[in-house]
Amino acid sequence: MAAKIRVGLVGVTGYTGMELARILASHPSMELVRATSRSEAGQPLEALYPFLRGTGLGGLIVSEPDPADLAKACELCFLAVPHKAAMETADALIRAGLKVVDLSADFRLRDKAVYEAWYKTGHTREALLSEAVYGLVELYAEEVRRARLVANPGCYPTASILGLAPALSAGLVETGDIVIDAKSGASGAGRKAAVATLFCETHDSFRAYGLPTHRHTPEIEQEVSRLAGSDITVSFNTHILPIDRGILATIYTRLKPGADADTVRAAYEDFCGDKPWVRLFPAGTLPETRWVRGTMYCDLGLVVDPRTGRLIIISAIDNLCRGASGQAVANANLMLGLPVNTGLDLAPMMP
Amino acid sequence: MAAKIRVGLVGVTGYTGMELARILASHPSMELVRATSRSEAGQPLEALYPFLRGTGLGGLIVSEPDPADLAKACELCFLAVPHKAAMETADALIRAGLKVVDLSADFRLRDKAVYEAWYKTGHTREALLSEAVYGLVELYAEEVRRARLVANPGCYPTASILGLAPALSAGLVETGDIVIDAKSGASGAGRKAAVATLFCETHDSFRAYGLPTHRHTPEIEQEVSRLAGSDITVSFNTHILPIDRGILATIYTRLKPGADADTVRAAYEDFCGDKPWVRLFPAGTLPETRWVRGTMYCDLGLVVDPRTGRLIIISAIDNLCRGASGQAVANANLMLGLPVNTGLDLAPMMP
Amino acid sequence: MAAKIRVGLVGVTGYTGMELARILASHPSMELVRATSRSEAGQPLEALYPFLRGTGLGGLIVSEPDPADLAKACELCFLAVPHKAAMETADALIRAGLKVVDLSADFRLRDKAVYEAWYKTGHTREALLSEAVYGLVELYAEEVRRARLVANPGCYPTASILGLAPALSAGLVETGDIVIDAKSGASGAGRKAAVATLFCETHDSFRAYGLPTHRHTPEIEQEVSRLAGSDITVSFNTHILPIDRGILATIYTRLKPGADADTVRAAYEDFCGDKPWVRLFPAGTLPETRWVRGTMYCDLGLVVDPRTGRLIIISAIDNLCRGASGQAVANANLMLGLPVNTGLDLAPMMP
Amino acid sequence: MAAKIRVGLVGVTGYTGMELARILASHPSMELVRATSRSEAGQPLEALYPFLRGTGLGGLIVSEPDPADLAKACELCFLAVPHKAAMETADALIRAGLKVVDLSADFRLRDKAVYEAWYKTGHTREALLSEAVYGLVELYAEEVRRARLVANPGCYPTASILGLAPALSAGLVETGDIVIDAKSGASGAGRKAAVATLFCETHDSFRAYGLPTHRHTPEIEQEVSRLAGSDITVSFNTHILPIDRGILATIYTRLKPGADADTVRAAYEDFCGDKPWVRLFPAGTLPETRWVRGTMYCDLGLVVDPRTGRLIIISAIDNLCRGASGQAVANANLMLGLPVNTGLDLAPMMP
Repeated sequence: MAAKIRVGLVGVTGYTGMELARILASHPSMELVRATSRSEAGQPLEALYPFLRGTGLGGLIVSEPDPADLAKACELCFLAVPHKAAMETADALIRAGLKVVDLSADFRLRDKAVYEAWYKTGHTREALLSEAVYGLVELYAEEVRRARLVANPGCYPTASILGLAPALSAGLVETGDIVIDAKSGASGAGRKAAVATLFCETHDSFRAYGLPTHRHTPEIEQEVSRLAGSDITVSFNTHILPIDRGILATIYTRLKPGADADTVRAAYEDFCGDKPWVRLFPAGTLPETRWVRGTMYCDLGLVVDPRTGRLIIISAIDNLCRGASGQAVANANLMLGLPVNTGLDLAPMMP
Repeated sequence: MAAKIRVGLVGVTGYTGMELARILASHPSMELVRATSRSEAGQPLEALYPFLRGTGLGGLIVSEPDPADLAKACELCFLAVPHKAAMETADALIRAGLKVVDLSADFRLRDKAVYEAWYKTGHTREALLSEAVYGLVELYAEEVRRARLVANPGCYPTASILGLAPALSAGLVETGDIVIDAKSGASGAGRKAAVATLFCETHDSFRAYGLPTHRHTPEIEQEVSRLAGSDITVSFNTHILPIDRGILATIYTRLKPGADADTVRAAYEDFCGDKPWVRLFPAGTLPETRWVRGTMYCDLGLVVDPRTGRLIIISAIDNLCRGASGQAVANANLMLGLPVNTGLDLAPMMP
Repeated sequence: MAAKIRVGLVGVTGYTGMELARILASHPSMELVRATSRSEAGQPLEALYPFLRGTGLGGLIVSEPDPADLAKACELCFLAVPHKAAMETADALIRAGLKVVDLSADFRLRDKAVYEAWYKTGHTREALLSEAVYGLVELYAEEVRRARLVANPGCYPTASILGLAPALSAGLVETGDIVIDAKSGASGAGRKAAVATLFCETHDSFRAYGLPTHRHTPEIEQEVSRLAGSDITVSFNTHILPIDRGILATIYTRLKPGADADTVRAAYEDFCGDKPWVRLFPAGTLPETRWVRGTMYCDLGLVVDPRTGRLIIISAIDNLCRGASGQAVANANLMLGLPVNTGLDLAPMMP
Repeated sequence: MAAKIRVGLVGVTGYTGMELARILASHPSMELVRATSRSEAGQPLEALYPFLRGTGLGGLIVSEPDPADLAKACELCFLAVPHKAAMETADALIRAGLKVVDLSADFRLRDKAVYEAWYKTGHTREALLSEAVYGLVELYAEEVRRARLVANPGCYPTASILGLAPALSAGLVETGDIVIDAKSGASGAGRKAAVATLFCETHDSFRAYGLPTHRHTPEIEQEVSRLAGSDITVSFNTHILPIDRGILATIYTRLKPGADADTVRAAYEDFCGDKPWVRLFPAGTLPETRWVRGTMYCDLGLVVDPRTGRLIIISAIDNLCRGASGQAVANANLMLGLPVNTGLDLAPMMP
């Protein structure tokens, strides 16, 4: 067997770090040789995550995030730290010679001003911003292959953009009347101690949050505008589900004159045909978040409603795998010259 | 203490029957003296529902549904049987001299043709259809007080109509661009044995269903059209949540020119001011289904989005209490000359 | 209507404080006039707990815990603060002339040395310790009526002691072979921000914790030893369930020679006969936590296993209501001269 | 790549069938070429299980269970049908020349009389009963390698036997005082439409069931008696958890004189040392069902309680993977000459 490519993970204590560990534990061509955390450095990974005991990663000693050490040990680093911190760390890692997949939002928005307006902080690495590739592999695989820095897409944007892409690319729906009603599992809120995400504050309940200014809005608008070839403003609205993983977005659009169920389906079949991770369901079957649990799939269901003249698109992903860490591994695969699906052909965990 | 008014319940085995039993177990002015079920007749209610042991209803013997017996024993009957069966039973009970609150859909739609188109069955009691009062107590209390037959509103319509009423009555939003994205707890799917609602098919997952022809659509359209004074078609879409109880509807509307956050809030305050069960939250606070658990509240939150020109209304109810059995008791209270809130001043079960 | 008795609550931000607010919101004879929290003082209760909006308690302004103010405003105070803090606050409140129901562990153990050994801290109010009454109303109602200070029982002890009481009082089981396998809903872990009780760390999973030295052990041993008339050591072991509320204890005992299903049932019927909140189910029916949700019930199911010579007792309560705040209100009822069940005749929330 | 070994699955509609499909979808050396169901024959597997779309199994046409067809197409069959039906089908398949892994209980009990007493039905294939190998791979790998018919262990027995094996083999605990308090996820109850396992009957609740005569009792007793070298009667008791997958057994034993924490840990380390799927946690760490989700691990935690003289063993498995279908694949691997872990090195799905 060929030696595995050595990679590192900066920021192992959150759910995206946890999910990267899960995926890399059985990746055939990558080996996780560094996992960093300032607060947990010095102990084996299985002391934090007993579920990794016996997997090969359990004994990995968590280390301090040191760019020189990481560059010496690895070819590529995954960056799973909060935005703002990410931009500086990414810069340091790249200067040290590493390739970087950044799971934060810091390099997703091409326009610095848009970033600063939505994230309420200055962007201090403008040069990298223009170099970074938006790592939605169905749309930018070629660019990712050549990239030093990939901005891993947000979870909601992954579901929203892939759901809208066929309709907008084919010009089937009005661009001025798009509403995305998105629902996410609680892992999307992160692994920080907080009353609002305690079990008893989330279980057996449902709520909206962050309306109407969720920070994934400009990321969605940036990409769907490119697909449509014109500036699009979307109404993007988010809710928390009492589930661990999964995003389901119900996307409301208005059909242009002439578009109907047949033209819509044809456009979606055309788009999905060569994209094995985008599964288009037949009419009458609608996605469920459990059907994508633990996988890279983005499942799409289509509802054309002649009564209202609307196309409703249901798009479902696993926010941690497809919407974060799995997608990061797909990008790393491409950046390292591996097939995009290496280590990612996972069947859904059902039930 | 005055003698309690004697009431009956036809159809005790579903979740709405169960919820009626829960509420009537501590109602100060009504006594449940009959509970019927063809399949369970002959045994005490606590054999079906051990949770009622010791409540005063545990020993009530389930009986066959016999209009003559019910009329002799009761003043009013709650009807918790499937649609179509309900229209015939309601007729029999009313002929026998009973007042009836029907929890099915059979008398909610004033237009027989609309009923027949959406429910795919003939309506055989047209006379009663025109007599029935739509029992949304915030809108029709006077009519309910005088009614022999009340059509208890559907769960989704209760949340949707109350959420839209202030905006439509005040003419603040466009009537041609209303989307209701509704999510319901699993009790809304009923208590029938079925694979699709098994624990392992619903837990830790989320899905849409019934798009785009959910049967509550015409009921919503009927009432919001009356409020707006013009015919409205809504895009009404439903999802199943992995929770027991609760509906949260996210309602998307487009503001008319001139309407803004202040005019919107003023209209909602005006509407809600004299309706103690409709709780309008201050800006920045959005409803959560658990905050209405077990109660009659319909909680409203408002989001005005200047970027998109939309008013987003979040409306939350308990589908079993406010959306079914509690609302039925409120209607019965009015029909029996009691204050509408008798036995219904329940605090939410939190957490 | 007679004026309500005015009561206060010291420590409103936890789940027991929240549950007290829920219960007192509809108590016919008590009025909550003070709710204290150092961190939240100054704002209305509904700012913390929007679910209380419209209940009469929503507008109550949270205040600093000041014994003089509390004594002036109230007759009795509920104390819902952590152990150790409780013993000092209780003392101050009693000196100020208040009656006190303490929901912490500080006055439950009659033996100071046992308290200090299990809680690893000194007990500084020994005089109050000897005065305090253990508020398990089925066993100590008379003493509670005359008490100034009631130590409200722990949640696990309530279920365990009531489950074992009939068997031990009647001498039917060996005292040297008792194992209690107890499972609790997550609200038992409190409302403090902590990673271990985040939704994603508790949902869809199950774990034991605290073995074998849970602090409720000596409380159980104290009371079952009194019932048996001899010193008993129990193996008491706890688990966290992915549910909001509810404790179910499976209690393993060994039958003494001569004891059988009939003698066991007779002893339990005898014990439960005059205790309306202890519901003994018929053979073949076993308790479920949802059947006691939101209530004062302690449900018991009995399994006699001739193959192993064991009596297995299943005991279920709502840990927040019966196991904490509801029981506190029952004790307060007695201390204030009210019927024990005032404001507590609640039907279970099902489903 | 070598051609894959062709296998079949009789009975695809239950959760064990679903789980087999999930595992075989990515098995590197086995190919599922037949999946049978009388009720669903003729449609592609993805019509039943949309989650399999795109996995390679989605297009497999479900067929009628025909031994001749299966024998022609496959080398080995998994049997996932109810007990009693299994014994006859297994016989037919073996006569047709197939190797069989039977997931039912029909060949687990070596003593026909014990089977008939607990399962209340005659055993009609006594010859096969004596030939069948009990497929607990940590104990019987050699026998499995040579077997035509493997009786796949039950889920509860897998957790219970592996948890007790080290203590009983080393003679550290009393054999007359063993209590197993076991809790299982709802998938253990099967995928049949039934009110008792509806979402709203199981969610946010907890209950015991089947006490004291669960049919897995004699299977546990058979194997632990062999390990101890003497007849053992256990008190085995089961509960349903509101989770999809996972069993956690809390096993209560009494230490023999001389046994202590050190001797216990040494015995467990000795037993687990060469068994990569049995993970022994260090003192202070106790298993959680989510840590084994989707895997073959059996996680063990040990608590020695000097106060009571007890050893408490916590044993956790995934009931569908380790406790059923994954274990069946492990057995098939051995029967087909593959390494036992082929296709089974799965990392836990966390969270």
